[in-house]
Amino acid sequence: MTDLEDKLVLFMPSGRRGRFPVGTPLLDAARSLGVYVESVCGGRGLCSRCQIEVTEGVFAKHGITSSAAHLTPPGEADARYHLRPGRRLSCAARILGDLVVDVPAEFAVNRQVVRKRAETRRIAVDAATRLVTVTLVPPELQRVGDLDRLIAAIEAETEYRGLSCDAPLLPHIQSALHVGTVTVAIHEDTDRPLLIGLWPGTRTTAFGVAFDIGSTTIAGHLVDLTTGRTVASAGTANPQIRFGEDLMSRISYLMLNPNDRNALTDAVRGAIATLISRLAGQVGITEADILEAVFVGNPVMHHLFLGIDPTPLGQAPFALAVSGALRLAARDLGLAIHPCARVYLPPCIAGHVGADAAAVALADGPQHHDEVTLVIDVGTNAELLLGNSSRVLAASSPTGPAFEGAQISAGQRAAPGAIERVRIDPASFEPRVKILGVDPWSDEPGFAEAVESVGVTGICGSGIIEAVAEMFLAGLVSAEGLIQPVVTPRIVAHGRTYAYTLWRGETDLTITQTDIRAIQLAKGALYAGARLLMDHFGVDHVQRIKLAGAFGSYIDPKYAMILGMIPDCRLDHVSAIGNAAGTGARMVLLNRFHRAEVEALVRRIEKIETALEPRFQEHFVNAMALPHRSDPFSHLAAAVTLPQAAPRPRRATRRSA
Amino acid sequence: MTDLEDKLVLFMPSGRRGRFPVGTPLLDAARSLGVYVESVCGGRGLCSRCQIEVTEGVFAKHGITSSAAHLTPPGEADARYHLRPGRRLSCAARILGDLVVDVPAEFAVNRQVVRKRAETRRIAVDAATRLVTVTLVPPELQRVGDLDRLIAAIEAETEYRGLSCDAPLLPHIQSALHVGTVTVAIHEDTDRPLLIGLWPGTRTTAFGVAFDIGSTTIAGHLVDLTTGRTVASAGTANPQIRFGEDLMSRISYLMLNPNDRNALTDAVRGAIATLISRLAGQVGITEADILEAVFVGNPVMHHLFLGIDPTPLGQAPFALAVSGALRLAARDLGLAIHPCARVYLPPCIAGHVGADAAAVALADGPQHHDEVTLVIDVGTNAELLLGNSSRVLAASSPTGPAFEGAQISAGQRAAPGAIERVRIDPASFEPRVKILGVDPWSDEPGFAEAVESVGVTGICGSGIIEAVAEMFLAGLVSAEGLIQPVVTPRIVAHGRTYAYTLWRGETDLTITQTDIRAIQLAKGALYAGARLLMDHFGVDHVQRIKLAGAFGSYIDPKYAMILGMIPDCRLDHVSAIGNAAGTGARMVLLNRFHRAEVEALVRRIEKIETALEPRFQEHFVNAMALPHRSDPFSHLAAAVTLPQAAPRPRRATRRSA
Repeated sequence: MTDLEDKLVLFMPSGRRGRFPVGTPLLDAARSLGVYVESVCGGRGLCSRCQIEVTEGVFAKHGITSSAAHLTPPGEADARYHLRPGRRLSCAARILGDLVVDVPAEFAVNRQVVRKRAETRRIAVDAATRLVTVTLVPPELQRVGDLDRLIAAIEAETEYRGLSCDAPLLPHIQSALHVGTVTVAIHEDTDRPLLIGLWPGTRTTAFGVAFDIGSTTIAGHLVDLTTGRTVASAGTANPQIRFGEDLMSRISYLMLNPNDRNALTDAVRGAIATLISRLAGQVGITEADILEAVFVGNPVMHHLFLGIDPTPLGQAPFALAVSGALRLAARDLGLAIHPCARVYLPPCIAGHVGADAAAVALADGPQHHDEVTLVIDVGTNAELLLGNSSRVLAASSPTGPAFEGAQISAGQRAAPGAIERVRIDPASFEPRVKILGVDPWSDEPGFAEAVESVGVTGICGSGIIEAVAEMFLAGLVSAEGLIQPVVTPRIVAHGRTYAYTLWRGETDLTITQTDIRAIQLAKGALYAGARLLMDHFGVDHVQRIKLAGAFGSYIDPKYAMILGMIPDCRLDHVSAIGNAAGTGARMVLLNRFHRAEVEALVRRIEKIETALEPRFQEHFVNAMALPHRSDPFSHLAAAVTLPQAAPRPRRATRRSA
Repeated sequence: MTDLEDKLVLFMPSGRRGRFPVGTPLLDAARSLGVYVESVCGGRGLCSRCQIEVTEGVFAKHGITSSAAHLTPPGEADARYHLRPGRRLSCAARILGDLVVDVPAEFAVNRQVVRKRAETRRIAVDAATRLVTVTLVPPELQRVGDLDRLIAAIEAETEYRGLSCDAPLLPHIQSALHVGTVTVAIHEDTDRPLLIGLWPGTRTTAFGVAFDIGSTTIAGHLVDLTTGRTVASAGTANPQIRFGEDLMSRISYLMLNPNDRNALTDAVRGAIATLISRLAGQVGITEADILEAVFVGNPVMHHLFLGIDPTPLGQAPFALAVSGALRLAARDLGLAIHPCARVYLPPCIAGHVGADAAAVALADGPQHHDEVTLVIDVGTNAELLLGNSSRVLAASSPTGPAFEGAQISAGQRAAPGAIERVRIDPASFEPRVKILGVDPWSDEPGFAEAVESVGVTGICGSGIIEAVAEMFLAGLVSAEGLIQPVVTPRIVAHGRTYAYTLWRGETDLTITQTDIRAIQLAKGALYAGARLLMDHFGVDHVQRIKLAGAFGSYIDPKYAMILGMIPDCRLDHVSAIGNAAGTGARMVLLNRFHRAEVEALVRRIEKIETALEPRFQEHFVNAMALPHRSDPFSHLAAAVTLPQAAPRPRRATRRSA
């Protein structure tokens, strides 16, 4: 091994490897292999997030003799952060020889829970909170208070007028003014500009958080308010789940246990506090560096986060306590961020269409298009927006959490080990599957070796949907949704019905008749909601469908259409728009004019209450069939090429029944 | 004993007694005897404050056989309040026979500590918080939130526009709207009208508190915001006293123990919480019924109440952290009143001239007069305002607490048992005194019997001042302030100096040379401050002097002038204006235009810093003499008729020395 030869570097735990010239920064090597090592500062040795460890030893199988001596010695940047023994900053460490490099779990982004990632959308930055640095001349004999002197200095150097000071800042004015130069944070989204932060010296970074509080998952993004960059993301399960899996069960719980309302509020606020702490920790800031927070969520989450009883949302007239946008002090919500931090919540659209849907509408709503566009955000409930540049309607559909893998016998949340993709051979009825966190499909080389580390633990939402759709296409499920007693070892008796064995392992994973019913109910509700909006809008088809959230990102639109979850539409006009609620939340966090925009938008959205419309029930009953009775199958021929669709012996006979 | 005979009623513990016709309400009997039984509702059986107990038994000494049966039986009003066994409402109980009536301590107003009483001044009521009752029509299908519906209803019935809702109210909107009629409290002293209270049904009373936070005493008044009436007053010693008797000693304590700042803040806030609870209890409301609070105090108290470090106020440039008026949420100060209650603090005038002086200026400042007027508010520090309708100056003088009876060997606070008035016979040198809480003077009939219950416990501020002035007038003290070795049993040797025995009892009460020095220092500082302001104003005498606070109410202006505490002025132009700081606090509590007025006034007041003026020291040294060297005695002849002034054998000889 000489210096002229490229060196072999193996990254663990991903197992990715490559050869690199001597002198290559380890961070660059990781990136060129697609190994995710976090770096906030862009490899400038300023954030300490790109830490790795070198595993010492001879790895005969890989032909590597790894040693920490195969990196350039620790330098100034490493010393600055007092790294744990053995840790190095990968941006500062350059390759000298072969290496086995371990990326510590805490510095690999947690992809397992958070499917609600921040999109990379560019948002014009005009945050409601700004930093201003001013220099004060010390007075010989002071005739006004320090605060008044500070405000006079700010007004002399800026166009701010009529500044007031938030209460928790009052005790901190004096000490900051001991130095001549101070930086203040001024919040502009109050009636008069409000001093909310004060630091001695010059300060150039201010942070905000944007949260999407879902019934199942809470996701947060930490955003640099000056650059607009999302510097960290984190998510967690909503701990309210112990009070009920879905919204209605939590409302029912509260109706029976009204004194537990604070417990639900505390649970969601506690989870948010933990996430904020994690977000801050990821980039080496403190909670007190966070000056703004935005929260979106469905109406029940919105109310519980605010400490408001959500039970009136459980029955007609589905009355929201508060529908308008809210501008609050973080401390009034018990948020442990900067004591003067401000909170913004966009308006809720209607009793079942929340601030999350308002954020989706802001980010990528139908009003952006001249064509009739349907936007669907499926979380535990589905929120629907239909319209175009001249008119927008909104409704929600009670899909329940089946699309998220809940209420499914072998269901699980999307996490490594979950079956996420399914194909069933229509001749042999044998499945092949793709496991989350495992690159090869189950019938591809290397699968057995790759699956060993994660195992196969259950079926997540996208896996269920594809399994049901593929079973239908293979003739294993009838249009009514009944599993057929087809003669194959994969179909087994299951009580008085049948089940399909999707995976054989230590524990078999099966799709039962109950699972199919759950999917039928969920997709029927979703389709019926969309149809109802189309009725109100006066169209019988839509020109464009946008799928927001995890639903849109992880579920193949083709299968959504096969199941009849979404109305007919040209498949190439169906697109995933990612975590639009999160994007909308970041938009109102980063640009105060987007606040005015979303408030005006929500005022003009027409609200349709599905639960009060007889036609919704009608559409719902019709939509239970696969795909749905109103126009069975015909649209599929136009929209999709279905290679598996040719041999359907058993289903053909059943359709006449 | 027949019904035709008037019945004998003895009230305990005061011992007052009288005969009343059968059928007389007991409350009326108490009032006609000057027995203080609290009554808020005016004897209408609505406030439950006028409770008494009847003592059963034969009181041979008084010739009374008392029995609860000698009152009309308990009625509806008594039943309403679930009184303790034996308790009766004195307004509802009528006299049927002889009675011994006990007024429970908690229903007798505590006159002992509070000398800062609310004046009866009439203030035009235009409070920043108003109640509005609106009726809402329940919606068939609700398309906006309850809050938005409520705001729309308010805007339809009033001229309020752009209402916002305070955060703690959000969880309470729904339940209040279950009834069609609700009352809201709207606060107008924010940039936009703010909903701060919401109650089902009709509500017509809203309360506020006005506090004067003195270094020694904290006094609070509970005010009905709709009528402007002061419905209760209470006071307590400032518990910060354990950290130092006066302001400078508390600042010194904090300089040595900077970590104890919160302890001082907690102490004052705790005392305020206790007073608020007492005030509310006095009229049968809860703390949550209080929607507004105003606090005035000297700069150190102002800062400590706000949680701000006051130590910069202890040295040049005597920098206030905050000098402007403050509008805050009560919850941000940890005040346990209504969770949305608002707080207002008037501006501080200067580093040593606080929001209390601003309140005095508002209530009765020199700007109200064309003549040159000096307003003096002596608490532990003296705050001085000098000027007229065209120009006002302000300063403070470090008098210390001697005028309040502190730092005096036999000194005590003003409480029953304290010597409050003193006269010394210039021939015999024998004193006669008046005891606080005892009506006759010590040489009047009935004194011995009356003094028995309270005893003679010390000398309060007014007593000290009169004692020193009378000793001076009797020739017992020289112009330099030295006690003279006059041959009388009242003058006794006291170390290397002399002392005057003012009271002979179980413990003798004496005036020592040190006591006289303390009074000289205090009065010298006060006089020097006034002179300095006169220098700045360009006058050598003032046309009007107003004495605010306890100083003004309890100290005879004649004696203040004899001692040379205040500048020369026609005695009939010297007046006591009572608790002007408390009046000013109630003015800004009750009328939001007074807030604008005090803020504009303070902006135009010229601030004089006594500690930085060499002339202050000069005036101070000159003013140590009795009365003061600049114009000894001559003014007294014009101002006062001094009957004791004729025989001054010893002093005449000393004056030439």
